[in-house]
Amino acid sequence: MDTLLLPEEDVKKLVSMDEAISAVERAFRDKALGNVQMPPKVYLFYGNGDLRVMPCYIKTGDISSVKIVNSHPRNPEKGLPTVMAMIVLVNPETGFPKAVMGGTWITGIRTGAAGAVAAKYLARKNSRIAAFIGAGTQARMQFLGITRVLQSIKEIRIFDIKPEAEKAFIQFIGDHGGAGLSLIPASSVREAVEGADIIITTTPSRKPVVMSEWISDGVHFNCIGADAPGKQELDPMILKRASKIVVDDVEQAIHSGEINVPLSEGIIGAGSIYGELGEIVAGLKRGRESDDEITIFSSTGLAIQDAAVANIVYENALKKGVGTRIRLVI
Amino acid sequence: MDTLLLPEEDVKKLVSMDEAISAVERAFRDKALGNVQMPPKVYLFYGNGDLRVMPCYIKTGDISSVKIVNSHPRNPEKGLPTVMAMIVLVNPETGFPKAVMGGTWITGIRTGAAGAVAAKYLARKNSRIAAFIGAGTQARMQFLGITRVLQSIKEIRIFDIKPEAEKAFIQFIGDHGGAGLSLIPASSVREAVEGADIIITTTPSRKPVVMSEWISDGVHFNCIGADAPGKQELDPMILKRASKIVVDDVEQAIHSGEINVPLSEGIIGAGSIYGELGEIVAGLKRGRESDDEITIFSSTGLAIQDAAVANIVYENALKKGVGTRIRLVI
Repeated sequence: MDTLLLPEEDVKKLVSMDEAISAVERAFRDKALGNVQMPPKVYLFYGNGDLRVMPCYIKTGDISSVKIVNSHPRNPEKGLPTVMAMIVLVNPETGFPKAVMGGTWITGIRTGAAGAVAAKYLARKNSRIAAFIGAGTQARMQFLGITRVLQSIKEIRIFDIKPEAEKAFIQFIGDHGGAGLSLIPASSVREAVEGADIIITTTPSRKPVVMSEWISDGVHFNCIGADAPGKQELDPMILKRASKIVVDDVEQAIHSGEINVPLSEGIIGAGSIYGELGEIVAGLKRGRESDDEITIFSSTGLAIQDAAVANIVYENALKKGVGTRIRLVI
Repeated sequence: MDTLLLPEEDVKKLVSMDEAISAVERAFRDKALGNVQMPPKVYLFYGNGDLRVMPCYIKTGDISSVKIVNSHPRNPEKGLPTVMAMIVLVNPETGFPKAVMGGTWITGIRTGAAGAVAAKYLARKNSRIAAFIGAGTQARMQFLGITRVLQSIKEIRIFDIKPEAEKAFIQFIGDHGGAGLSLIPASSVREAVEGADIIITTTPSRKPVVMSEWISDGVHFNCIGADAPGKQELDPMILKRASKIVVDDVEQAIHSGEINVPLSEGIIGAGSIYGELGEIVAGLKRGRESDDEITIFSSTGLAIQDAAVANIVYENALKKGVGTRIRLVI
């Protein structure tokens, strides 16, 4: 029996942001309803980096996958990306690996999709100004996601410590549906976030970069950068002001999300977590309830997001006849 | 950068039993010396079966892999094997997946190799009679392994509840270097094991199949069948008589090896485990010390065995120019 091989280049063409958003939204709902198995990520620690293995099973839809993804910060010196991912899609009925695909693009788009789902339920419907702190790949994916769910966005502000990254981000937005938007490169984080309705942080920072005194009530945060112990992007005062701190997974968020540092320092307690995004999607908890709430979504990235998007890629590949078939395991 | 694809059919031709034995022996030694990372197997449970994800890193030799292997007992009804495996070989230096290969053959040969290493250190050097209880794939692999390390074996006895499996096993042995051996199909387990020097059990039994009163002092057991909670093949009295119960990994053995049932029933204590095979290979503990000791090796199967053999397959593939290159993840 054949396994379908889908190289990264094919994968990029096989899933739209809209498809990713609805797949990820369903996956979050399934998590809240107890329809998924998702053991904790398993780590291998090498000298230069690490490897994360992320298996899961979404019973609804019969979707199961294993993502294998590295993080080697010094790879760019060798001409390789820091992060490279691969996803094996398994048929739960038989255990057969029905597809092996590049997972780097999927890792990006599923994170953008999670940000979009969070913005849909937590940002003000009339949000006009989105401020991006950090202008890398994740910022692009967040832009693509958020603008799909909030048509009200008219102004994009961007700050990055590297001016060339800002420039490339603005170019990217121009090329990807940003024609009608005002695009404003900011000269400081403060300039970017003052008066913003949504703030998206995608930096690798280990110290707060957005301060409480700069932001207004009613703002929504997508905090994407903190995904490991010791990382944080927000002034802990913002966490204290927020009425809803929403996470993708409580366990992961406590150990590696935006709240991990203030939690370990005792500045906030675990009780300050309002709930998981899936609980809001499933209607078990409320999303935004008033225009002056500060809301925060902290993303750490879940295996079920990868599985849901990988499954769309696979189904679209079958429809379009894309990919190479190979007798890999039998 | 390209990932090398090695389908199951190629993999079979790329590693000899001798290569597998020395690779697995090294891996066991590395485990005992603290040179490996091997998180516990991660399980996903489907309705019809399960999936096991087995990551590891052998620092010596810079070998890292992730095996993904299923177990679906009802697959044969659908024309598929019960067990299908795939191995991703990762470069620890960069995190890049340098090869994706079929892992079903490797799973068999690495288990045969572990049995060979155990027999080398634990069976009597003059062992003449080997009795196989269970005549499936694992029995074949044990035969191939043990006869490489013990040239003294002259007689092979075989018992399986399916006569056609016995016949196929004898045919296989005839085809694989068994020309000079007497091959004896037995009509009962007792007939097979009485007077045997080595007994190899490879059944899926959940009740003892080999009884203590049938076996003589000095015998060595390779217990391969028990690899999940509730499975056992030996009369617990044999465990009590044995002077050395050796396991591949203490943690796994306690939960799923030959001793898991007698342990959970309190018939033996965890203290009755003599040690891990790697400790003997590394010279930290002694192997067989006298001709009348009863010794038992309980195999549950380790990720480092897969990694060590997969690495041989990869290196041989490079030397021989076998496999298909594909730009999978970047």
